[in-house]
Amino acid sequence: YGKNTIKFLRLHKEGKKQFVKEVEVCAHLRLTSPQEYLEGNNSLVIPTDTIKNIVLVLAKKNGISSLEQFAIDICNHFMTTFCQVAYVKAYVQEVPWQRLHEDGIPHIHSFICVPDGIRFCEAEQCRNGPLIVFAGIKDLKLMKTTQSGFEGFYKNEHTTLPERHDRILCGEFFCKWSYGECKDFDFNCIWKKIRECILEAFAGPPDCGEYSPSYQKTVNCIQMLVLSRVPQVQVIEVVLNNTFYNVVDMKNLGLTNDKEVLVPVETPYGSCACTLGRKTFFEA
Amino acid sequence: YGKNTIKFLRLHKEGKKQFVKEVEVCAHLRLTSPQEYLEGNNSLVIPTDTIKNIVLVLAKKNGISSLEQFAIDICNHFMTTFCQVAYVKAYVQEVPWQRLHEDGIPHIHSFICVPDGIRFCEAEQCRNGPLIVFAGIKDLKLMKTTQSGFEGFYKNEHTTLPERHDRILCGEFFCKWSYGECKDFDFNCIWKKIRECILEAFAGPPDCGEYSPSYQKTVNCIQMLVLSRVPQVQVIEVVLNNTFYNVVDMKNLGLTNDKEVLVPVETPYGSCACTLGRKTFFEA
Amino acid sequence: YGKNTIKFLRLHKEGKKQFVKEVEVCAHLRLTSPQEYLEGNNSLVIPTDTIKNIVLVLAKKNGISSLEQFAIDICNHFMTTFCQVAYVKAYVQEVPWQRLHEDGIPHIHSFICVPDGIRFCEAEQCRNGPLIVFAGIKDLKLMKTTQSGFEGFYKNEHTTLPERHDRILCGEFFCKWSYGECKDFDFNCIWKKIRECILEAFAGPPDCGEYSPSYQKTVNCIQMLVLSRVPQVQVIEVVLNNTFYNVVDMKNLGLTNDKEVLVPVETPYGSCACTLGRKTFFEA
Amino acid sequence: YGKNTIKFLRLHKEGKKQFVKEVEVCAHLRLTSPQEYLEGNNSLVIPTDTIKNIVLVLAKKNGISSLEQFAIDICNHFMTTFCQVAYVKAYVQEVPWQRLHEDGIPHIHSFICVPDGIRFCEAEQCRNGPLIVFAGIKDLKLMKTTQSGFEGFYKNEHTTLPERHDRILCGEFFCKWSYGECKDFDFNCIWKKIRECILEAFAGPPDCGEYSPSYQKTVNCIQMLVLSRVPQVQVIEVVLNNTFYNVVDMKNLGLTNDKEVLVPVETPYGSCACTLGRKTFFEA
Repeated sequence: YGKNTIKFLRLHKEGKKQFVKEVEVCAHLRLTSPQEYLEGNNSLVIPTDTIKNIVLVLAKKNGISSLEQFAIDICNHFMTTFCQVAYVKAYVQEVPWQRLHEDGIPHIHSFICVPDGIRFCEAEQCRNGPLIVFAGIKDLKLMKTTQSGFEGFYKNEHTTLPERHDRILCGEFFCKWSYGECKDFDFNCIWKKIRECILEAFAGPPDCGEYSPSYQKTVNCIQMLVLSRVPQVQVIEVVLNNTFYNVVDMKNLGLTNDKEVLVPVETPYGSCACTLGRKTFFEA
Repeated sequence: YGKNTIKFLRLHKEGKKQFVKEVEVCAHLRLTSPQEYLEGNNSLVIPTDTIKNIVLVLAKKNGISSLEQFAIDICNHFMTTFCQVAYVKAYVQEVPWQRLHEDGIPHIHSFICVPDGIRFCEAEQCRNGPLIVFAGIKDLKLMKTTQSGFEGFYKNEHTTLPERHDRILCGEFFCKWSYGECKDFDFNCIWKKIRECILEAFAGPPDCGEYSPSYQKTVNCIQMLVLSRVPQVQVIEVVLNNTFYNVVDMKNLGLTNDKEVLVPVETPYGSCACTLGRKTFFEA
Repeated sequence: YGKNTIKFLRLHKEGKKQFVKEVEVCAHLRLTSPQEYLEGNNSLVIPTDTIKNIVLVLAKKNGISSLEQFAIDICNHFMTTFCQVAYVKAYVQEVPWQRLHEDGIPHIHSFICVPDGIRFCEAEQCRNGPLIVFAGIKDLKLMKTTQSGFEGFYKNEHTTLPERHDRILCGEFFCKWSYGECKDFDFNCIWKKIRECILEAFAGPPDCGEYSPSYQKTVNCIQMLVLSRVPQVQVIEVVLNNTFYNVVDMKNLGLTNDKEVLVPVETPYGSCACTLGRKTFFEA
Repeated sequence: YGKNTIKFLRLHKEGKKQFVKEVEVCAHLRLTSPQEYLEGNNSLVIPTDTIKNIVLVLAKKNGISSLEQFAIDICNHFMTTFCQVAYVKAYVQEVPWQRLHEDGIPHIHSFICVPDGIRFCEAEQCRNGPLIVFAGIKDLKLMKTTQSGFEGFYKNEHTTLPERHDRILCGEFFCKWSYGECKDFDFNCIWKKIRECILEAFAGPPDCGEYSPSYQKTVNCIQMLVLSRVPQVQVIEVVLNNTFYNVVDMKNLGLTNDKEVLVPVETPYGSCACTLGRKTFFEA
């Protein structure tokens, strides 16, 4: 198969007010025949230059009402236009431009980049198969400074980690969910709702939080909350790349460090991942 | 000289509410004698491990009320403790953790990383010289989708750029200013004010913006506004690394593209920089 | 499941001569029960800290005769020691230190980092399943300045790419192959042989090269040569991320540019990938 | 001032044999008047697009016999063509393509990227001033697994580092030297000679090496050897960003680790730098 990446800006105006979407699109195609590989016969090959042109033309004609709708448009175009395409996947990722505000007043044409979690989506389709839509958020960095521990784990002669009931929980989240064969969803609204669920499940109630006995349990709480609150989600995958922080031992410097100064431990770098769906489906 | 980088987290509590600062500190030292280089005599050398310990101990003892105060504390410590230090510079940069909010309510111990411009500062001192403090913001990405052009530039046989009166202005800003020999400033408050000045000078009034005839002029507007509004600033340097966007020519695809679809041009990558101070000092 | 990354150096001596391996190991584990996720019950969880200790102890005890043998050792250890492990995968990647030479004489303890293609391997095993070994090379950048073209491709109204019979072929290769259930292979020797096959198939005979009608065909040539020369390889996957170079049009600068000055085109960034196995198995 | 970056490929042929240089050029210009900044008057501004055209035209017309000669050509062109230019600096950096060999036979048109130290140069000139040429190597990673220590350093109550007489010396080197107002040098040949000096001074004799009492002393040895062997060099700056490796303590795992397994310490990350010239000039 082949893929390629296209970055571009789509502007539109409503009166004098300007709107901007900057996206990175990655289109994967698989053809029905491998003759290009085996024989060097290019007659069915769609050049990446043509793919780029198509993506830009679709952006021009349809605009980008949501990332998901744009990914669906791309899949539809390739499936209906090229009978040699056996499979198409469109990945769309957003540059997080937000409108500037001055004293609370939105600016008509100025924007600031605020990368506090990057929105992306994916649509894919096999010929004669359903069009499946995924969406997600990545590079979302969160931290809890208390209400997190790790105790009661398996121990043997290679265990040196002490049990801790008050550690830092910090990491980068990657969350991706499937809408199944969605139809007429308000993708922008649902995405915002899911983002709020993730933050809420991570943090717990604002006045006291909620104790996390492990990264794994926090991952599971996020998945459970999203599935319970957002009926459009079929399956949700969460990957958490955690950063460990060690309380600096200051005894030999003559000081008591009561979890005040901590340093990040770069190795081992841990990650935990889980995919959770409705019904009884479970794959850890 | 030698330098080294230390990353750490400083937590503190007020009642049950938790506060966090994650910083990266880089300390540069220059010794009065080069004997370590010339003779391999290490007797005056302060190991990076010792420097790390000192920075962590200062963080533990003093806390980090502001990046600038912490940088000043580091300079003071090295100058008063080590007579072999001829020069010290402390660079402090912040990881932009922001408190999470749920339905407007601040969370007592949860944070999200929002890197929309990174705050940093620098304090430096030569033995017998004044302690100078700088502060700044970097990796601040801004865009104006209209009210920007570039016309009337110098032309010769190598000129192929057309004049444009409605282009995208987009780039990453690095701004660094000097407070001189500051004393008892509210560094956190001043920094926020300067950030607002930068955004305001870049964007212009929220309802109509302000036309930018060049990157250079926008850089100058930012500097002028900061100097006029913030008396504590002595000199301000601004570097703008711009991203060019080209309107895609869709004629041979049978379409008219009225500045709706644009692609970033990665080369040539331009940058313009200027340092502006009070009085008549000018260095381009 | 969980994974983590561990970087370390393994030294050994033969007489006064020093040998070094610096590796990055990533271990993935999946447990037989998801109770850690669902119930926050950690009793079967093997902390990443313990995994790190095990990897370091294995390196100390066994040394690293080859990346592949070390990955196999890790899999074996986890499968035989922990009955709660359902699946283990060990990825091992090398920092490419090469012995320094002075006037052709090898230095006994000095090394230079030469990243002209990074060696890696992977071993994986499900409980009660076979142990499968993969190896590969990544970040290998190759260029042919002639003997490459792209013609006869599919055309429609979105096609703007001209046919070219003398273009640059340049890209970054990722190659990964499976040894199946290998036994007593000389992994270091085989890896070097496969690397030579890749370079030879890419470049063709040194005196004239071989014409490449497409990236896809070059990918296939590499796979065919490896499969024909190295019987231990079962399946080989090749991904080529190509960089396009455009001949600069200098007509409006009054010059003829006969493929002398070219600029890289950053978008669209293309990639083609193919997996080829023995017998009739084919998956594009 | 303004600068911009241009990446391109310059090919040439001798008979059927192909030669390639891929370079990144960064040109800095400062104009005689700041009117562009202060008044938004662009009449003297040379657009980055024009700068790019000039660099490409020079590459086409002159070729790139050496990076240094090309940088000199750029400076000369801007100084003689534009009277509004007060200062010009041209930085040129090479992509390290090396000719492929098959069984020792050089290939006529195939290349591999071998980034074991990147060559760069800089030429700069003020109007009415001399043209100064610098050259250098960066991203050069070297390691000694023994014959390195650090003892006898300054100690006080914040010292926790033990003295070591057999540690790893590992780091990334940046070396930059000045040729002064050079004339008719064989830049390619001199550069290779200096690179060999750096490796030799770092490593010492191949059969036994040479003990390094500190990073600083090794930096000085490199500078001394280059200055003594290469008369064209006026001043040489060396920056060493070191990576520390700690011997893993395996006592609580029941093992003795005789400097066999070590882990890199990411913080504190140290750096030492020194500039050394002929005569008595010294600036640490």
